[in-house]
Amino acid sequence: MTRNIDLDSHDSSDKSYSRNSQQFLNKFKVSVGDEVKIVTKKTEFFGIILPRYETFSDKYIVLKLKSGYNIGIEIEHILEIINKNVDQLSKKTIAKSDPGDNTHTKDDKYSHNLFDKMNSSKLLPKILLISTGGTIASKIDYRTGGVTSLLTASELYSAFPELSDYGYIYPEFLFNEYSENMNPHHWSALANRISYAINNEQYDGIIISHGTDTMHYTSSALSFALQNIPIPVVLVGSQRSSDRPSSDAFSNLVGAIRFIKDAKYSGIFVCMHHNISDEVIACHLGTRVRKNHTSKRDAFKSLDGIPFALIENSDIKYDKLLHNGIERANISNNFTSRTAFNDRVFLLKFYPGFSSSFLENFLQLDYKVIILEGTGLGHVSKGCFPILKKLINSGIFVFMTSQCIFGTVQMTVYDTGRDLLGLGVIPLSNMSSETAVVKAMWALGNNADAEDFVRIMKTDYSNEISNMLSLV
Amino acid sequence: MTRNIDLDSHDSSDKSYSRNSQQFLNKFKVSVGDEVKIVTKKTEFFGIILPRYETFSDKYIVLKLKSGYNIGIEIEHILEIINKNVDQLSKKTIAKSDPGDNTHTKDDKYSHNLFDKMNSSKLLPKILLISTGGTIASKIDYRTGGVTSLLTASELYSAFPELSDYGYIYPEFLFNEYSENMNPHHWSALANRISYAINNEQYDGIIISHGTDTMHYTSSALSFALQNIPIPVVLVGSQRSSDRPSSDAFSNLVGAIRFIKDAKYSGIFVCMHHNISDEVIACHLGTRVRKNHTSKRDAFKSLDGIPFALIENSDIKYDKLLHNGIERANISNNFTSRTAFNDRVFLLKFYPGFSSSFLENFLQLDYKVIILEGTGLGHVSKGCFPILKKLINSGIFVFMTSQCIFGTVQMTVYDTGRDLLGLGVIPLSNMSSETAVVKAMWALGNNADAEDFVRIMKTDYSNEISNMLSLV
Repeated sequence: MTRNIDLDSHDSSDKSYSRNSQQFLNKFKVSVGDEVKIVTKKTEFFGIILPRYETFSDKYIVLKLKSGYNIGIEIEHILEIINKNVDQLSKKTIAKSDPGDNTHTKDDKYSHNLFDKMNSSKLLPKILLISTGGTIASKIDYRTGGVTSLLTASELYSAFPELSDYGYIYPEFLFNEYSENMNPHHWSALANRISYAINNEQYDGIIISHGTDTMHYTSSALSFALQNIPIPVVLVGSQRSSDRPSSDAFSNLVGAIRFIKDAKYSGIFVCMHHNISDEVIACHLGTRVRKNHTSKRDAFKSLDGIPFALIENSDIKYDKLLHNGIERANISNNFTSRTAFNDRVFLLKFYPGFSSSFLENFLQLDYKVIILEGTGLGHVSKGCFPILKKLINSGIFVFMTSQCIFGTVQMTVYDTGRDLLGLGVIPLSNMSSETAVVKAMWALGNNADAEDFVRIMKTDYSNEISNMLSLV
Repeated sequence: MTRNIDLDSHDSSDKSYSRNSQQFLNKFKVSVGDEVKIVTKKTEFFGIILPRYETFSDKYIVLKLKSGYNIGIEIEHILEIINKNVDQLSKKTIAKSDPGDNTHTKDDKYSHNLFDKMNSSKLLPKILLISTGGTIASKIDYRTGGVTSLLTASELYSAFPELSDYGYIYPEFLFNEYSENMNPHHWSALANRISYAINNEQYDGIIISHGTDTMHYTSSALSFALQNIPIPVVLVGSQRSSDRPSSDAFSNLVGAIRFIKDAKYSGIFVCMHHNISDEVIACHLGTRVRKNHTSKRDAFKSLDGIPFALIENSDIKYDKLLHNGIERANISNNFTSRTAFNDRVFLLKFYPGFSSSFLENFLQLDYKVIILEGTGLGHVSKGCFPILKKLINSGIFVFMTSQCIFGTVQMTVYDTGRDLLGLGVIPLSNMSSETAVVKAMWALGNNADAEDFVRIMKTDYSNEISNMLSLV
């Protein structure tokens, strides 16, 4: 695990361009971050020169168009690069006259709503942007076709210089991990970094760029580790790497910044596309969100169907029914940071044909908690009952969640549920199995007492147990 | 496991009423199944007398109203019961003048569309209704408040005598199991019974009443076990027990019968509510459906977003994009029945903090297949790589699905996926992890050869692997 919790300075050095393309840039006296017009044999492109990586082909200059899309222009087709004076030519003019990307008029539309620059008369928010890796910070390696994790927070910021229109961003590199490799040690380090910022630095909000695979596990972890946090902490990912034309990274980032700027709520949130049409960014509560699609931009869904907030048209709509959000005005001074996690928790998904004898293994293994992901309202086959009883008697805590994903475990409806309750299996209401695993790791990590442990698991700390049945 | 594969006759005996209420029925010369007017002190009710169970209070007569709702009327409030001659008074008149259930006008509406009786000039379909247990065949025990499984198929038919308006139903009792107790032995028995029916009996279709918890596992099992089946086999469940006013059992059953009557497609299907408003019944492909909510009527969702068919307003809309359905006209005579299952398959859901050392256990355990439910496009942490390699080298087959539920495993996009492919982990496209477990059990049960096993897992047999990416 690479770790760096010193604040990096914004580094838009163009040393990332390899020799050929760098010489080419030098020839026209332009460098990374410059707003330019590129004249080719056929047309002209307006945009900002992006950094490029040495591992990539040096035959291209990469331009960030106002639409948010990037375009690679072959050096051999470039006749001239003209460094535009930003004061003379507004960015809006560039967007309107952008001839290089006529197919993306849909995105141009957003430059007049979601992406409208914030009113400069209001102070822009001061935001810590912590990079942990993942697609949002990934580049396609065009040699192998695979996506590799390369970008640091500052490189990400360089890729989207327009972010400066929305907030003062302090980028910082913490890890460079695909999210499938994130583990409780990473959660602790991240929580500790945020805790340090809360106690020693002055930010209006924190954005964490994170791989999407386990972003909902991390958002749960931070929700438990950092309670009564006085500012919003927003995890942001992308389903398309930042250098791909269809990347959703920029709009998700802008959504997160807008949410922080609005400053109404503090807590841990996830900001991702609300639908596939890119029109709206959804802001989800950290404990009530799940990645429900392998590839779609709107892969993340609130477990209650309705996200905490929808960010669209320069406007943020909060769902009044989701009253459990913590209004910043009501935040007391009791910010608590309990950042330890203990991974002796096993998530067991039940299925027909599951051999109950498998459970016997847990009598020998060093697990303290089993989260059963049961069927329906919280069931496993009756064949499991005797050995579950044995496990519980041996001191292992067994909790029940549902593999249905949506809805609430209710173990008093059927005989099976009642029998399981009788054995000492503890139902976890509408907590997702993913959040339940994280909460158990956190509760184990920070509390020694067994009785306290069960009480903590059954108590709502951060909307992980909610009474929103009327919504579903 | 109780088993009875003899055809039961339709038994609407009213011996199920206990002594008090039976004597009361005798007094007015009416019995179960009669269409009656019940006069109470305050109002009149029109409907059909339902069977009642000895375990329940004998203070009530249960009436099935035309709306589909049941009502229990206290004997002590009943002044008179009048046996209506159905020929003199149409059921429609009863429905219209039903004063006992004014709150259910929504359902009465459906009596003019989904529930319109089929055109009697067309032959009604001949349907085998196999009961396996579950909520659709459950009753609330009002003494304990819990739901218990009581109804047989014939009792279910008695509860909904109107089913005779839609088809000739041959009810049969096979098991009485909550679906969380269903296992590969039940799948085999059910598949064998259906296979027998195909080879020896003449039905237009088969309906299986099944608990909803694992209905999608069973529908997958039957899809693999019974290929090129010449008639539609439809699994039907309900999220509310049959004797509750809000039961969805009747409309789901009618939807299944209508689908069978339409006779366009054969195969294994699941028919359940399409939305919470009760207006449409969705028919899902047996391998592409999942229970995604613990309690809602529309808990079942097609993995591709769009169900195979929507049954509404006496009309059935088939999704033309889902071209993989087997048109009955194209069915050849090669119906195959391979009904064995081998349960040496483990479903392992990955999560952050999962200890890779746990995998070591599988070197000692007698599992032949591990289905990994990975994150995102099909990932587990790099810490798992060495021991996964060891497992694969030891002869265990390791397959990859995604815990995202929706979308397709794609292991060539990121380094992690490529590394896993390199280790010999086999991706299963857009097959759900639930269907993957069932398919592996079926492939193991019916094929000895290792090479054949992998080929079978990677081949689409029953839409479990589909090329419908354009839909998602």
